[in-house]
Amino acid sequence: MKKIITVSREYGSGGRDIAKMVADELGYYFYDSAIIDTVAEMTGLNPEYIKRNGENTRRSHFFTYGFMGMNFNGLALPDYLWQKQRELILYMAQKGNCVLVGRCADYILRERNDCLNVFIHADMESRKKRAIEVYGDPAQNIERLLKEKDKTRKTNYRYYTDHIWGQSQNYHLTLDSSLFGNKACAEIIVDLAKKF
Amino acid sequence: MKKIITVSREYGSGGRDIAKMVADELGYYFYDSAIIDTVAEMTGLNPEYIKRNGENTRRSHFFTYGFMGMNFNGLALPDYLWQKQRELILYMAQKGNCVLVGRCADYILRERNDCLNVFIHADMESRKKRAIEVYGDPAQNIERLLKEKDKTRKTNYRYYTDHIWGQSQNYHLTLDSSLFGNKACAEIIVDLAKKF
Repeated sequence: MKKIITVSREYGSGGRDIAKMVADELGYYFYDSAIIDTVAEMTGLNPEYIKRNGENTRRSHFFTYGFMGMNFNGLALPDYLWQKQRELILYMAQKGNCVLVGRCADYILRERNDCLNVFIHADMESRKKRAIEVYGDPAQNIERLLKEKDKTRKTNYRYYTDHIWGQSQNYHLTLDSSLFGNKACAEIIVDLAKKF
Repeated sequence: MKKIITVSREYGSGGRDIAKMVADELGYYFYDSAIIDTVAEMTGLNPEYIKRNGENTRRSHFFTYGFMGMNFNGLALPDYLWQKQRELILYMAQKGNCVLVGRCADYILRERNDCLNVFIHADMESRKKRAIEVYGDPAQNIERLLKEKDKTRKTNYRYYTDHIWGQSQNYHLTLDSSLFGNKACAEIIVDLAKKF
């Protein structure tokens, strides 16, 4: 029985919803926006800033480092946020019985053997459809938006883990939700979390 | 019901055995060394050469292109072999009800919607153990051997597909056989092949 499940996901793949279903089915805590709020509380940072930058830093790298200096415990703001998120993820994992969405949790918890690490992706058409219909993103240039999201998550993951985001070897299980559907994905994860 | 299952795998992950179990369970044709033999027959090439180079070309790239010239239907030997393997994989897929191991079959058949594409990997310790105990590889420098195998497969895949070998988005499903074991991996694949 795995006490911790990390779910990384492409934007528009339904990974967050799948993670929520898994948490509900197993009776586990579900940490997603909760992480943001708690980090905000811990750091005193603006929740909107964290939402925007928690997985998408480095784009404004030059400006952040160049102009803001090292003002947060000797760290630049993105690295300070990373450190605080990391501490929180380690704390939540220690408590156990939780599903953690995104934020390099798979990497942060790589030393533990009670984690099931999952990555959810989907084909471009399904992601577009979901982004427009479920998240309310504008239909215009939607593919560019999705590729931009991929790029920032990939860059963020690479910077902090030195691994490649979405590379199967980082996860125990990866699933294409556009073939299997969200419900079946959640069932597979629950089943494997219980058995191993 | 998926009529074709492609299984790509890290050396030492047990992917080939898993693929065989899946084929047996579904009553599908199993193409692995069979591909090699048939390509050999089609091309008149030495089966040993194909075994060594079918997934591991490009290392001797310079020598092959530089010294051997374009002697095979206007192609250099590795590209000629690739073309012949590709034709054969398309032919086998057309017949259907088959499990295909390696050889970029996931990429070659990417336009079909009756394929389930799977990637199997495992942690370094399990792969070492398997390589030594099951395949009889020498224990000395075993990690280097495995990394070399990864590199050649990755390079080959990149050259012919322009995609990244092992990147989850290339597959519908990827599994860590060192966590789940070969039997459970085969069961998951069979179950999903039947349902979707």
